Amino acid sequence: MSDAPSSQAPQTPVTEAARRAKKAAAALAPLPRTARDTALHAIADALTARTAEITEANAEDVAKARAEGTPEAIVDRLTLTPERIEAIASDVRDVVALPDPVGEVLRGSTLPNGLELRQVRVPLGVVGIIYEARPNVTVDAAALCLKSGNAVLLRGSSSAYASNTALVAVLRDAVEAAGLPADAVQLVPGESRESVKELMRARGLVDVLIPRGGASLIKTVVEESTVPVIETGTGNCHVYVDEQADIDTALSILVNSKAQRPSVCNAAETVLVHAGIAEAFLPRAVEALREAGVTVHGDAAWQAAGPDVVPATDEDWGTEYLSFDIAAAVVPSLDDAVAHIREWTSGHTEAIVTRDTSAARRFTSLVDSTAVMVNASTRFTDGGQFGFGAEIGISTQKLHARGPMGLPELTSTKYVVTGDGHIRE
Amino acid sequence: MSDAPSSQAPQTPVTEAARRAKKAAAALAPLPRTARDTALHAIADALTARTAEITEANAEDVAKARAEGTPEAIVDRLTLTPERIEAIASDVRDVVALPDPVGEVLRGSTLPNGLELRQVRVPLGVVGIIYEARPNVTVDAAALCLKSGNAVLLRGSSSAYASNTALVAVLRDAVEAAGLPADAVQLVPGESRESVKELMRARGLVDVLIPRGGASLIKTVVEESTVPVIETGTGNCHVYVDEQADIDTALSILVNSKAQRPSVCNAAETVLVHAGIAEAFLPRAVEALREAGVTVHGDAAWQAAGPDVVPATDEDWGTEYLSFDIAAAVVPSLDDAVAHIREWTSGHTEAIVTRDTSAARRFTSLVDSTAVMVNASTRFTDGGQFGFGAEIGISTQKLHARGPMGLPELTSTKYVVTGDGHIRE
Repeated sequence: MSDAPSSQAPQTPVTEAARRAKKAAAALAPLPRTARDTALHAIADALTARTAEITEANAEDVAKARAEGTPEAIVDRLTLTPERIEAIASDVRDVVALPDPVGEVLRGSTLPNGLELRQVRVPLGVVGIIYEARPNVTVDAAALCLKSGNAVLLRGSSSAYASNTALVAVLRDAVEAAGLPADAVQLVPGESRESVKELMRARGLVDVLIPRGGASLIKTVVEESTVPVIETGTGNCHVYVDEQADIDTALSILVNSKAQRPSVCNAAETVLVHAGIAEAFLPRAVEALREAGVTVHGDAAWQAAGPDVVPATDEDWGTEYLSFDIAAAVVPSLDDAVAHIREWTSGHTEAIVTRDTSAARRFTSLVDSTAVMVNASTRFTDGGQFGFGAEIGISTQKLHARGPMGLPELTSTKYVVTGDGHIRE
Repeated sequence: MSDAPSSQAPQTPVTEAARRAKKAAAALAPLPRTARDTALHAIADALTARTAEITEANAEDVAKARAEGTPEAIVDRLTLTPERIEAIASDVRDVVALPDPVGEVLRGSTLPNGLELRQVRVPLGVVGIIYEARPNVTVDAAALCLKSGNAVLLRGSSSAYASNTALVAVLRDAVEAAGLPADAVQLVPGESRESVKELMRARGLVDVLIPRGGASLIKTVVEESTVPVIETGTGNCHVYVDEQADIDTALSILVNSKAQRPSVCNAAETVLVHAGIAEAFLPRAVEALREAGVTVHGDAAWQAAGPDVVPATDEDWGTEYLSFDIAAAVVPSLDDAVAHIREWTSGHTEAIVTRDTSAARRFTSLVDSTAVMVNASTRFTDGGQFGFGAEIGISTQKLHARGPMGLPELTSTKYVVTGDGHIRE
């Protein structure tokens, strides 16, 4: 049971931290918005006030990364400057301004017997986040969890351990100064893989685990965790160019979906083109993709359309390149495009380009992914773009939350039923 | 990943069935309500028309159960009569009449750049149900899954195997005659425990598993399944009698919560009484519970209130009796009642009896369970009572669904985003 007496879990530094988080979550849950907002403002102010201490700790991580020969692009993502810390503080202030999800009444009615029924949003309790590299996630995740009334257990990468330790110290002091329990924000103790395993086995203490990072991290957590998991982020996204597509629109959406920022989960990895438009579209697409620096891994039809198209294998259809590469095929029909997508997609985002309303309707109805775009780039699947203000990740699973996860996705509900001595006949 | 290419799963009769279910789910998802409703009407009619065949198969299960010395109460729950089959058919017709969850737009907006965003309810896909004894669950679960556009894999108990086989044959014929894929309804092949294990490992083919039955079944599924699970039903429910309770109301709610139907998950298992009202309340409660045939397992104060109160141990606080037994304690304050509940509850339903609005507010705010009753019996936590029309179980977990699960809880969502050549800058 998720609520098995917590005393049954083994005693380790990680389960001890989880127990303290559970206690903090119980104290947080009944607090009104003002108390949580005050703590968030205190966090933003403390980040600014204690910048020196944070950059000093960060310098340790950066020096270590350089000594280990870490690529400069990754070192850059690890680096905290006073400007970046100010931007992180500003993001926290943006979270303060978001609507409070806690206490929202989702539905309610007066039952025939007079009982008053209300379904009310409540915090999940203890949220565990497992993430890689970038220390700004430490603050973002903590802010979203606090805003939604949850305690958070943060497990960042060991390469950012000094930075995360400094940041969490600042957060905890600020939370405590605002009168909330410091244990609402904790770094999972230990840098070993064992501490991740213990976190994944802390069922009954941790209410949900959200892994943010590469496919192998997410796969491990999904397979080994007994704590419920929300999968995020793997994106093998498709652009389908329909027979009735406007070619200029299709080229623009294809290049934007692939090349505007290839390293992110909502970038396109495969383009499928209806046979009826292939002759007109393929040569121009090959040229446009070449100009954008993209290598096309194509089927026979695509190979015939340009000398620099490399042959695609089945492996290409299943690959999330996250680079300037794209798999490309011609399909006989919209339904074949859908069948290809259903077989290979990670369920993140698929786009159709068409002027045909029936084709758009059929595609959006048949494709079973988190987001389906009609005449728009796959790159729009994003909490900020969707107007959710902030996101803790993009769920690619069907249970609980699907798509960009904002504050409401960090909550559960409970029923409050009020009577006047009502008994059941 | 939940959507890993399904070809990676091992080939067994169970995974083959799951693969067929996934294909059927893809065919079901885009169908309009009328198609699904037609199939449900066909099911109801077929159950009536083929009653003889069902009762004949059921007679086999009943004879086998009797030969094995199964208690008569359980044999009764297994037995299908023409009247009971007619009642099951009538329940299916009630499901037809429920609002269609599929296609509901949960939220939508036009983004600043003109993109039109809609979050739409869609079926989950393939729902697996693992359940015990009663063959009526076979039809109820299939009807709710079909109504919400899902394919269903049914894994009933081996004691009802002949009945379930006959029922599923009737359901499949009716579904097919209505023009839907027969594989939308399947019995999991095999009676062995191995087939349950294979079902629990069919991640990527099955979208959710819902175990319905005893605590040990649910515990096994939760711990061993790689398919996401929704926990249902364990109910260690509490009634708290506040210092400001009306004593007659409290007695009525206590006896109703415990004794109206002790074998179900929303029956009370523990009563906690504020010390300030104990002297007046305990003697009358002991008498009322004795009259209702209930054995009280009490702390020292309760033992002093009646000679037939047996001493409670820690084990009593954690026990879901499902019988005419109740654990009973006196607590110094409302907060101590809450602490006791937080420590021992399974998170199902807790009730407070009080005339004090502040006490009611504090209790509903601090108790973190699926349902919190104010001056009402715990027995009201039920899909039918809540006006949801039907339920597939009562979730006691926090993710995805909490409380009685009706049709909306058998769905996921997807985002449909419509543009006019929109690309990201």
